[in-house]
Amino acid sequence: MIIELKNNTNAAALAAAHHAFHILYLGKNYLITGSGVKEVPEALQDHAQNHWVFANDIQLASRRFQDQKRTVNFGNVTIGGQTNNTILIGGPCSVESEEQLRGSAELLVSMGLTTLRGGAYKPRTSPYSFQGMGLEGLQLLAKMRQDYGLNVITEARDATHIEEIIEHTDIIQVGAKAMYDQGILRACAKIKKPVLIKRGFGTTLQEFVQAAEFVLSGGNENVVLCERGIRTFETGTRFTLDLCGVAWLQEHTNLPIILDPSHAMGYAYGVNPLARACVAMGIDGLLIEAHPNPKVAKSDASQQLNYDEFRKLHADIQKVAQSVGYQIV
Amino acid sequence: MIIELKNNTNAAALAAAHHAFHILYLGKNYLITGSGVKEVPEALQDHAQNHWVFANDIQLASRRFQDQKRTVNFGNVTIGGQTNNTILIGGPCSVESEEQLRGSAELLVSMGLTTLRGGAYKPRTSPYSFQGMGLEGLQLLAKMRQDYGLNVITEARDATHIEEIIEHTDIIQVGAKAMYDQGILRACAKIKKPVLIKRGFGTTLQEFVQAAEFVLSGGNENVVLCERGIRTFETGTRFTLDLCGVAWLQEHTNLPIILDPSHAMGYAYGVNPLARACVAMGIDGLLIEAHPNPKVAKSDASQQLNYDEFRKLHADIQKVAQSVGYQIV
Amino acid sequence: MIIELKNNTNAAALAAAHHAFHILYLGKNYLITGSGVKEVPEALQDHAQNHWVFANDIQLASRRFQDQKRTVNFGNVTIGGQTNNTILIGGPCSVESEEQLRGSAELLVSMGLTTLRGGAYKPRTSPYSFQGMGLEGLQLLAKMRQDYGLNVITEARDATHIEEIIEHTDIIQVGAKAMYDQGILRACAKIKKPVLIKRGFGTTLQEFVQAAEFVLSGGNENVVLCERGIRTFETGTRFTLDLCGVAWLQEHTNLPIILDPSHAMGYAYGVNPLARACVAMGIDGLLIEAHPNPKVAKSDASQQLNYDEFRKLHADIQKVAQSVGYQIV
Amino acid sequence: MIIELKNNTNAAALAAAHHAFHILYLGKNYLITGSGVKEVPEALQDHAQNHWVFANDIQLASRRFQDQKRTVNFGNVTIGGQTNNTILIGGPCSVESEEQLRGSAELLVSMGLTTLRGGAYKPRTSPYSFQGMGLEGLQLLAKMRQDYGLNVITEARDATHIEEIIEHTDIIQVGAKAMYDQGILRACAKIKKPVLIKRGFGTTLQEFVQAAEFVLSGGNENVVLCERGIRTFETGTRFTLDLCGVAWLQEHTNLPIILDPSHAMGYAYGVNPLARACVAMGIDGLLIEAHPNPKVAKSDASQQLNYDEFRKLHADIQKVAQSVGYQIV
Repeated sequence: MIIELKNNTNAAALAAAHHAFHILYLGKNYLITGSGVKEVPEALQDHAQNHWVFANDIQLASRRFQDQKRTVNFGNVTIGGQTNNTILIGGPCSVESEEQLRGSAELLVSMGLTTLRGGAYKPRTSPYSFQGMGLEGLQLLAKMRQDYGLNVITEARDATHIEEIIEHTDIIQVGAKAMYDQGILRACAKIKKPVLIKRGFGTTLQEFVQAAEFVLSGGNENVVLCERGIRTFETGTRFTLDLCGVAWLQEHTNLPIILDPSHAMGYAYGVNPLARACVAMGIDGLLIEAHPNPKVAKSDASQQLNYDEFRKLHADIQKVAQSVGYQIV
Repeated sequence: MIIELKNNTNAAALAAAHHAFHILYLGKNYLITGSGVKEVPEALQDHAQNHWVFANDIQLASRRFQDQKRTVNFGNVTIGGQTNNTILIGGPCSVESEEQLRGSAELLVSMGLTTLRGGAYKPRTSPYSFQGMGLEGLQLLAKMRQDYGLNVITEARDATHIEEIIEHTDIIQVGAKAMYDQGILRACAKIKKPVLIKRGFGTTLQEFVQAAEFVLSGGNENVVLCERGIRTFETGTRFTLDLCGVAWLQEHTNLPIILDPSHAMGYAYGVNPLARACVAMGIDGLLIEAHPNPKVAKSDASQQLNYDEFRKLHADIQKVAQSVGYQIV
Repeated sequence: MIIELKNNTNAAALAAAHHAFHILYLGKNYLITGSGVKEVPEALQDHAQNHWVFANDIQLASRRFQDQKRTVNFGNVTIGGQTNNTILIGGPCSVESEEQLRGSAELLVSMGLTTLRGGAYKPRTSPYSFQGMGLEGLQLLAKMRQDYGLNVITEARDATHIEEIIEHTDIIQVGAKAMYDQGILRACAKIKKPVLIKRGFGTTLQEFVQAAEFVLSGGNENVVLCERGIRTFETGTRFTLDLCGVAWLQEHTNLPIILDPSHAMGYAYGVNPLARACVAMGIDGLLIEAHPNPKVAKSDASQQLNYDEFRKLHADIQKVAQSVGYQIV
Repeated sequence: MIIELKNNTNAAALAAAHHAFHILYLGKNYLITGSGVKEVPEALQDHAQNHWVFANDIQLASRRFQDQKRTVNFGNVTIGGQTNNTILIGGPCSVESEEQLRGSAELLVSMGLTTLRGGAYKPRTSPYSFQGMGLEGLQLLAKMRQDYGLNVITEARDATHIEEIIEHTDIIQVGAKAMYDQGILRACAKIKKPVLIKRGFGTTLQEFVQAAEFVLSGGNENVVLCERGIRTFETGTRFTLDLCGVAWLQEHTNLPIILDPSHAMGYAYGVNPLARACVAMGIDGLLIEAHPNPKVAKSDASQQLNYDEFRKLHADIQKVAQSVGYQIV
């Protein structure tokens, strides 16, 4: 339950309520209990101005609490709300060298795009694979921000380097394998930078949104959800992009939604048609992997677009976006 | 392996090959063996004009055998090939009464659409649910064909009534629960009417296309694939529409593809955005459930659109289709 | 709802109820409506002696209707009830020749076992694979019955040959790909021979038991459930044997349960440990594939045990059965 | 590839190899490269005494590298190797109070068991649920160790408190939601305490074992795998315990295996039969949740056994263990 307090609520009442319930305090005016609580606690009845009851722990992110889609700023580009903006974020899977990253940055700038992705700490499942350039990769991303005025987004692999990520990037990505990581989520809750949370490939929609609730209830309202494919019995493609789930999220939550068809598909040939499908749903952004020469990429070689394919994708999705009243930014 | 024979191939060679291998004979000129055979059998080497080796039993449906997408006629509307037509097929989940069906027929006609769906033999999972009107339902569909000039499509539940279905409908639908049913598939192979095969919700893409191979190799080339959602761990929606799988089918097979977002989603609110997503991929058709009053429908009440929603969907997908160079027919 | 009628219930009341509800009539004393009906229909209130309300359409198979596990006779061996018998059914995946089948029959007889399995109509997913010996295979099975006094069990692939299957075999197997096939289920409902229904690999537990309800409500009480693995994201094994599901079935249903670890695992090395696991749960039977020379088997080569492995399995599971108070028969 | 070096290998050769390949150094004698390397690098050919090529990155854990199952000591109890010990680990889901934990400790001691489980940092999916007692919970566990001579095992939720966990517990549990967490895995690699890694519910067997490779290749050989159920389409039970996967792990890896049927099933009624099934496979241990009064438990109320049920389980699995040549310890 979310309880909106009257302005004159005193500390004693709050303390009593806190004692009686497991209560989180949000901002100046809101208290939150677990969704199991269906009636305003007696100690707070005189102080409650308004309250919302929920069927599950999707509370702050629920359309039943706030119906309008939230806005989030990626630098000077706003997504969500009534902007009808679909942001196209491009860049390589892994940061591999300054030359590679500079090529990506110039590609984006030439197309009027604003946000560069690139992995520095790669959450590989094998200790014997390339693990990313780490801090050096972060510094290269920061250099691109400085040289080209781009926003940069990169992924936190685990809580040991979350402070570094927060320091060097503009948007913090919580990866699919890290989205239950409370060390990361709680650190992201204390800042104001936008946080993009990817859905785990074995994660239900409810758990996915509840990960966002960790950040929202901790005080950071700049949260974006990212669907990137779930694991199913089908192995002809790498994962299964869950667009039914996207329709569900649009209906039930007030958070902007960015989609990642590259990881879902796993093969470059499918990225363009899937990106068109995503955009036709009226979404807030796309994450697309692009590499100057995908064949030699150190990770995810099969799914990265080359630059010509990326430009073609951009042209194609502009038309689709327009057909549903959106624009690519 | 598919072997194209020279014109003068004699019966003795064929018989010898048939004896040595498990060989199917297709049309005048083609033999097919299991994909495990990688070299032309010795007895046929003098007679083979051309041959194609395959990694698996997707053979006639493979782009490696015939690269161009096949065309299929639904009455006087052609889909597939280079038509860039996306056919919109509408109608109720179950045929419930003449009045209900006549309403649907008039809706379609008023919108310039050509094909009416409706279930007569419902493949319900419980013996205690409404099982469909059976033959009476088929006759009502046939009446609509006569009165309104519409093509009708309905589903064969099992092999016991496949002859009835073939007789009364223009397009035979093999349902998701029946797609391994060789009684149905083999009966469909012997006719020339179009056959729409739905993917089972637990069926891999390869098995799905192999079901089409039963019909193709039996002599009926008018086969259309229909993705309608697979069963995954996610229960917020009824099934998970597999658009990664659709990209895979477009890349690897030469069969037209129709999508069924209604069954995948299970909730009316998601049908419009998903239909837009499907159309943006450049597909050959959509199956959409619509009912004059979904709340009282005898099956699938939650996912059927009412007529206003259906008209809105039609308007919305026309724009999306245009943005990818297709038209709704 | 199941309604037990008083002895003097008249036909008029039945007709009225039938008119008002979708009602099935079972045996002399029971009526069944869909589980949505929660109160005895008014027209029947004077005639109802007893009634059971259900949360879903698992009704006749529910422990809430009949708590004691049902017994089913496989020839002169009884399973279920309080027998604590675990029947071991062996034989090849496909019937390939008389010699092969005779070897299997002699193996079973030498071990004191009573029931021979073997596939005649194989539900292959490709038209280019070996499809089974068909009627000839059925006749070979019948010959083994005659020569060795064994019960034989084989699978119906689709409804076109269900009468043949019913005629030639002692236990009718409804395969995993055919378990929604109402043509088969309704035919099985009209006989008294035992019916073993395999769970589809994409089928929920509830749908699985509802398939049994088709047979039970049609009048054949001799139904056995068979879990044989579901399809999950894991591809290291062929399927995933769902023993949590078995615990659920034991708790909620009154039907005997037979397990098929061979198909679930897909590899011979895992069949013995899995068979031990199954038996330790206190189950009513096992289906194990065995072949004189698995390497040359025409189907499922990797998962069939050779005869020594089969004898070893028999010895191992006898000890496990004893430890949980069961005996292998 | 794993390369065993001759004793006199010089540093220059190592440095050259390290430069040319992505090589990990293990102990005094072994080098490891990614499994993509199939031939001994030229710079090392004079120094290689032995080498093993692998199909994937399961290397140190592979039976092809070391065929015999590894032994791991849980205090003075050894599991794995040829001990034929199946350790029964019991305790509550969450540490809730000293009284609750003392009750559990006394239960275990009275039954001759040695290892107590209990969660202090709970990896809940909602911020509004009970999150565990944290450090206070760890201290209570440590107190039980001191008072009763028990080994204690608890879970690391994320990398921010891994040092605390390592300090206060005897066996470190890496939970299902944390098993990709390299912050945790790399910290565990630097110690010698046993590490129990739970399989993520969306994790393939290969990824699961590769998580163990992070610890093994970092220098800690005391790794145990724990299967606890995967997420599938079936929702009648909480998860699906993957015993096919256990057979796969027994065949392909040399690591001891402990099973957690409580979390897989999610309902107390199924824990006993599943535990019997697990033990019949010849496994190295069981994790079972038990609580003095499950109905009031602060987490996982439905799946915890009460003490009588726990004692009954102990008695039942002893018989099963004996039937497969194992003993419960």
